[in-house]
Amino acid sequence: MLKERLENLRQCAPLVHNITNYVTANACANILLACGGSPIMADDVDEVEEITAICGGLNINLGTLNAHTIPSMLMAGKKANELSHPVLLDPVGVGASRLRTGTAEEILKQVSLSVIRGNSSEMKALAVGGGTTKGVDADILDAVDEENLNHVISFAKDFAQKTRAVIAITGAIDIATDGKKTYVIRNGHPMMSRITGTGCMLSAMMTAYVVANPDDILEAVTASLCAMGICGERAHRRLTTLDGNTTYYNYIMDEIFHLDGDILDGGAIYEMR
Amino acid sequence: MLKERLENLRQCAPLVHNITNYVTANACANILLACGGSPIMADDVDEVEEITAICGGLNINLGTLNAHTIPSMLMAGKKANELSHPVLLDPVGVGASRLRTGTAEEILKQVSLSVIRGNSSEMKALAVGGGTTKGVDADILDAVDEENLNHVISFAKDFAQKTRAVIAITGAIDIATDGKKTYVIRNGHPMMSRITGTGCMLSAMMTAYVVANPDDILEAVTASLCAMGICGERAHRRLTTLDGNTTYYNYIMDEIFHLDGDILDGGAIYEMR
Amino acid sequence: MLKERLENLRQCAPLVHNITNYVTANACANILLACGGSPIMADDVDEVEEITAICGGLNINLGTLNAHTIPSMLMAGKKANELSHPVLLDPVGVGASRLRTGTAEEILKQVSLSVIRGNSSEMKALAVGGGTTKGVDADILDAVDEENLNHVISFAKDFAQKTRAVIAITGAIDIATDGKKTYVIRNGHPMMSRITGTGCMLSAMMTAYVVANPDDILEAVTASLCAMGICGERAHRRLTTLDGNTTYYNYIMDEIFHLDGDILDGGAIYEMR
Repeated sequence: MLKERLENLRQCAPLVHNITNYVTANACANILLACGGSPIMADDVDEVEEITAICGGLNINLGTLNAHTIPSMLMAGKKANELSHPVLLDPVGVGASRLRTGTAEEILKQVSLSVIRGNSSEMKALAVGGGTTKGVDADILDAVDEENLNHVISFAKDFAQKTRAVIAITGAIDIATDGKKTYVIRNGHPMMSRITGTGCMLSAMMTAYVVANPDDILEAVTASLCAMGICGERAHRRLTTLDGNTTYYNYIMDEIFHLDGDILDGGAIYEMR
Repeated sequence: MLKERLENLRQCAPLVHNITNYVTANACANILLACGGSPIMADDVDEVEEITAICGGLNINLGTLNAHTIPSMLMAGKKANELSHPVLLDPVGVGASRLRTGTAEEILKQVSLSVIRGNSSEMKALAVGGGTTKGVDADILDAVDEENLNHVISFAKDFAQKTRAVIAITGAIDIATDGKKTYVIRNGHPMMSRITGTGCMLSAMMTAYVVANPDDILEAVTASLCAMGICGERAHRRLTTLDGNTTYYNYIMDEIFHLDGDILDGGAIYEMR
Repeated sequence: MLKERLENLRQCAPLVHNITNYVTANACANILLACGGSPIMADDVDEVEEITAICGGLNINLGTLNAHTIPSMLMAGKKANELSHPVLLDPVGVGASRLRTGTAEEILKQVSLSVIRGNSSEMKALAVGGGTTKGVDADILDAVDEENLNHVISFAKDFAQKTRAVIAITGAIDIATDGKKTYVIRNGHPMMSRITGTGCMLSAMMTAYVVANPDDILEAVTASLCAMGICGERAHRRLTTLDGNTTYYNYIMDEIFHLDGDILDGGAIYEMR
């Protein structure tokens, strides 16, 4: 089943418009090319509508948001809505500043989102307002584990219903839900958290999966979560004792590049709840 | 012949001023250091004239242009002209938005360019005005192949005469012309299109070649095109079945680092038309 | 002795706020994750105070400074001072433009700095005012060698006393001084100068060391200088004849990731003057 989602992505080769941060922009472009999509980064208010119009979907990432890119995010989001292009929001660091929280709330208000993807701290801050995050990584208190899993699923479902978006909460365990159906994914490797921008990259690739699978966004999101996790596992097996987080990044990208439907279906560890 | 161009570059170790995008800025700096040059990125209107003055040449890249960098591009370009420093324009995504097309046209009007390098879609959009590009990659309809080669050469020569710049159109087949003499280059590997910013990197390195070879810009451009293609071929031979686009990027850079005149002359596949 | 500094860093896992350039931002995030810290990049004037407040320290890098980030640098710096968080300044390219020199001087005036780290040209330009730098690399005339070492040490000590900051001048030989005690470090490899942003990365990691070792900033700075140099040496030994500056970058990061206290103490080549 996930196989088909990947095959659609390779077939469709979607062009994804990214309004993203300058820290991981290269990695986002890289993963889009690796997975079979194509990236364009553009954030000036005078061109974002036209750029979004020639793309298949829009990935909004708050990583290094600023006074000039915020209006562009809103404008591009509304244009994408008008054209029925999927829009993904990655609320990086929401809760860490009023600017981030306020901007994310404004986007939620003005733009109809297909997917919101973040770590548990970001999603909590976004859902309840106010700040509990310590920067861009999930607070240890917010980590999803077997004990609080049901609680987090119920939170995610509520948030999905409220926003009408597919909610993807990522961490050691990933959760994806449209408010009715929920997938719990257990792929990945702890060392992925030591790589710069794993979350940003995932959001970029997820947008490509969603563009290529408009008929089932939840399954597209789930496929991208499994894909990222499986590639993280496979790349980790390739590491020697000398290799650290940077070679690991290279190898994960290489795995994304070579991933095929059989590896994806064979390696995916997920269940429906 | 090309050998000498590379040796001049290594001898001269030119400092290149880049006003470029945040997606591939690191890769542009990287390739400049690898090929024997030195990079500086600076785009604030309050310093670009001074920065350009201490450099040997200027590389203008429209990748993530915005309201603040556009005036800097024009100002730096005019200053470089005043000092007789070569200026290269990489019209990334021209045709995809009026901002990009308009900015490129404004640069053409106000700045005397030594080289314009882009893919066939960008060059067509720039020459005829209006938009035919789908983002930052060449439209499949615009690809240069053996069948339309003569037509593209004739287009490139016209455009070179009109702009008085060396025109470099890159793709599966590369073309470089000053309006009179034309080189057709057949180095490279298809997988290079899966690497983020191959074009941006090439433009940065090309600027260094041009700075180091002011007496023959067309040959300097041709040498950089062959260099990039040969390194792409050699790096591809180094790939194992596990390696994807990111290891490929690393290996191409490594090849650029180690490239010498004999490898360049021995591997270059080009003809004069 | 240095071992303890690294162990404190691993224990503390400091979150570092970086206001930095878009060329090496990814590498700075990468090295922070590799060494045991955690990065956040944020530069909008409307959030830098809040972001700095949740971090342990602030790394200000002038690499691609602009009209919008300069006020953010000052505001974040003053906030960090208010909270007694250490602030490091990396005056990239100071001396190359009045904007850079003026901004660095303004930061020196308004912000109390814990550390200033730069190459010899930048430090000279910063101390005496006016421009002697050729871009972002040290001028060959300014290089620190055995002959002028005593002279440079005396300059560094004066500058440390004047600024009340630890001064770190990096190059083939590194110098760190608080105005009284001085360390001279002879780790590293010449090929490190061919890597994009070695200095920026070092500054980011140095900030993490300083945050984790508030009781002895000079020793923390020295530990980070030795760490970087040792990793450069070890990574260089791993290179094959095919590897160039980009594989070298990857391997240095991998070494930073795996560095432990015994390797650090065993490999450090430094003396107190």
